[in-house]
Amino acid sequence: GDEGRHQFTLKTAKETLTGKYGEDSKLIYDLKDQGGELLSLRYDLTVPFARYLAMNKVTNIKRYHIAKVYRRDNPAMTRGRYREFYQCDFDIAGQYDPMIPDAECLKIVHEILSELELGDFRIKVNDRRILDGMFAVCGVPDDKFRTICSTVDKLDKMSWEDVRSEMVKEKGLSEEAADQIGQYVSLQGGMDLAERLLQDAKMSQSKQACAGLTDMKQLFSYLQLFQVTDKVVFDLSLARGLDYYTGVIYEAILTQTGPVPVAAAQNGAGEKAEEGVSVGSVAGGGRYDGLVGMFDPKGRKVPCVGVSIGIERVFSIMEQKAEASAEKVRTTETQVMVASAQKNLLEERLRLTAELWNAGIKAEVMYKKNPKLLSQLQHCEDSGIPLVAILGEQELKDGVVKLRTVHSREEIDVSRAKLVEEIKRRTSDV
Amino acid sequence: GDEGRHQFTLKTAKETLTGKYGEDSKLIYDLKDQGGELLSLRYDLTVPFARYLAMNKVTNIKRYHIAKVYRRDNPAMTRGRYREFYQCDFDIAGQYDPMIPDAECLKIVHEILSELELGDFRIKVNDRRILDGMFAVCGVPDDKFRTICSTVDKLDKMSWEDVRSEMVKEKGLSEEAADQIGQYVSLQGGMDLAERLLQDAKMSQSKQACAGLTDMKQLFSYLQLFQVTDKVVFDLSLARGLDYYTGVIYEAILTQTGPVPVAAAQNGAGEKAEEGVSVGSVAGGGRYDGLVGMFDPKGRKVPCVGVSIGIERVFSIMEQKAEASAEKVRTTETQVMVASAQKNLLEERLRLTAELWNAGIKAEVMYKKNPKLLSQLQHCEDSGIPLVAILGEQELKDGVVKLRTVHSREEIDVSRAKLVEEIKRRTSDV
Repeated sequence: GDEGRHQFTLKTAKETLTGKYGEDSKLIYDLKDQGGELLSLRYDLTVPFARYLAMNKVTNIKRYHIAKVYRRDNPAMTRGRYREFYQCDFDIAGQYDPMIPDAECLKIVHEILSELELGDFRIKVNDRRILDGMFAVCGVPDDKFRTICSTVDKLDKMSWEDVRSEMVKEKGLSEEAADQIGQYVSLQGGMDLAERLLQDAKMSQSKQACAGLTDMKQLFSYLQLFQVTDKVVFDLSLARGLDYYTGVIYEAILTQTGPVPVAAAQNGAGEKAEEGVSVGSVAGGGRYDGLVGMFDPKGRKVPCVGVSIGIERVFSIMEQKAEASAEKVRTTETQVMVASAQKNLLEERLRLTAELWNAGIKAEVMYKKNPKLLSQLQHCEDSGIPLVAILGEQELKDGVVKLRTVHSREEIDVSRAKLVEEIKRRTSDV
Repeated sequence: GDEGRHQFTLKTAKETLTGKYGEDSKLIYDLKDQGGELLSLRYDLTVPFARYLAMNKVTNIKRYHIAKVYRRDNPAMTRGRYREFYQCDFDIAGQYDPMIPDAECLKIVHEILSELELGDFRIKVNDRRILDGMFAVCGVPDDKFRTICSTVDKLDKMSWEDVRSEMVKEKGLSEEAADQIGQYVSLQGGMDLAERLLQDAKMSQSKQACAGLTDMKQLFSYLQLFQVTDKVVFDLSLARGLDYYTGVIYEAILTQTGPVPVAAAQNGAGEKAEEGVSVGSVAGGGRYDGLVGMFDPKGRKVPCVGVSIGIERVFSIMEQKAEASAEKVRTTETQVMVASAQKNLLEERLRLTAELWNAGIKAEVMYKKNPKLLSQLQHCEDSGIPLVAILGEQELKDGVVKLRTVHSREEIDVSRAKLVEEIKRRTSDV
């Protein structure tokens, strides 16, 4: 449940902490009285990263960062959305030639989503300058760019009719402008589309759009070298709401529906089963060349491009997949359990365990004086430990260990001297 | 500096965040108005862990956790102490036979401190029950146990005279009781000391002390099997202030002084040089069998034992050591830089980089169309990238890559088909 997710929360009700630390309790940090500053929890990892670069005068860096962020949103647990959740960001900061780091970010998203085998996916790409240029040539007033942009951003959840209606009725855009936008945002393609739009009578009037389109061509040429164009689509409807983007923007979505929710399947609710668990966007990012400068006293800019992976959602999909396939998820890295079939061998078990630890083997031993062999084997089955090293009086006398493969139940005698090597050999693929 | 340490802080002044997210700004989490709860930042990882076990009805688990904790202390930056810092905890929860998981915790501390090569260290061990029993037989009133215990805890920083004086003058203990305590807390030893104290006329009157001493003997017998008794000392002066400990307690300290601070060495301040940078305690922990029950509605207990590694301090020592030895700290895991000596080879560099990435090699490429070879090599020198794969027109024609070892400057031609294998071979020890 949600409580489990929030297991190691930073925020803690004060009464949870008091009375646990004795005299050290005075060291507990209350947020309330730290000088009256109005504090917020971080919303993403990008703004803190930009501030860090500015404050430490870092002009180039490439790094990843996995940490929690907080959003005052309505949590949707079944879709893997929480108010407190981990993000995983990768960013490249520095003054470089156009689109090379941008292409690397897309390659990384492609690699991650491919390797995780989450099903088919699509990476939509657009450029803030193309969007702004498009708005300009379609007759959107300058002061409406941002608000119209955030309406366009809803096209992945709303029909064009609803988006159009919001632009015209709520945001006061002319019908003509809205319809022109409608023609552009339906376009999808690759390098060819960028070339076509560079020739487009209206689009080519915008310097901004042309700069964006030229870079988009360049980007696709690098993506070809990286062999990732199979999944990347230049999509003019991709807007992304955040104000800080200045160039290329992108978003990865899973295109397959997830496994059928257990409840729906049990109810035999056929019409629900088709829908499955859609999780939508699993990664997104873009170029933000102005953000670092906003934190620098002298406004010095550091161009940045980055990507954020929604790892909680990724995990949620992987868990659902594992459940659906009834596949046992290995919950341990332990290679071998040191066990005994007879009584009074705790000391021998501990001695062998330490030997294995010292040789770099991940070994476990039951913390019982005389555990039953069956319960030792059962623990290996449950947690996915692949091997059991079994000690008995006879084995000790002969200087051997009975090495059992949990999966096949095969047992062989291995001399004590060869044990480490044998365990390594048998678990090298795990 | 301190600012750099706090790079990715969770707390953020609200104005830092506003104006960056457009319409999404409404999702930013303010701590102030979340229902008027008085919130605190976590002080350690133990209490949140215990609460997690209770709330999720987990009755046995073994896990580590690395995360930030917060203490309203006076930071001492040179000694690696901050108000916001990472802790690294390892805990074993569950109902097991006495002292087996406790011994494993000590083995882990021993292993970590040995492998990190921080210099010689000592792990002091004691037991809350031995302390309480000792206080009882020395005539400390029941209601003074905790406060006297926290005074004893200061023996690592204060002389016995000062500790005695605090007990007698500030805390109102009788001189006789203080002197009796003084005799015990000067004792250090191993299993032999536990045996001797079990025979001690006074100590043996306390049931609690006897239980603690019997377990201490057992603990040392397991520590012998784990071959760690060379560093572990049963020390009756070890108290540890936290209220939640119920059994064995321990603390690891580095016994060597650190390297000479740069400033002192430059000043030729000989008398300071001897002192060096002492960091004191680098790990600590103990058994806390009652904590989980405090969070369980029905008071169900889950016995736990754990250890906390002060990783910030450990890092601070490692950094100082690296500085003192003028040893270059490798700041990257990159195995190879894909470079070129000639112009117009960006596409070939990107193609090869993707090839290497796809084969699982950690490769880097400069994000410039035509970088100078010298600056590519310099980057490898600076960041510790061990290999450079150099492409040129001739190499492309011949289907080879010039593989340069940065350290030795040796260059060999490697056929494109063998490149991955050769890079793996040459970086397998890195």
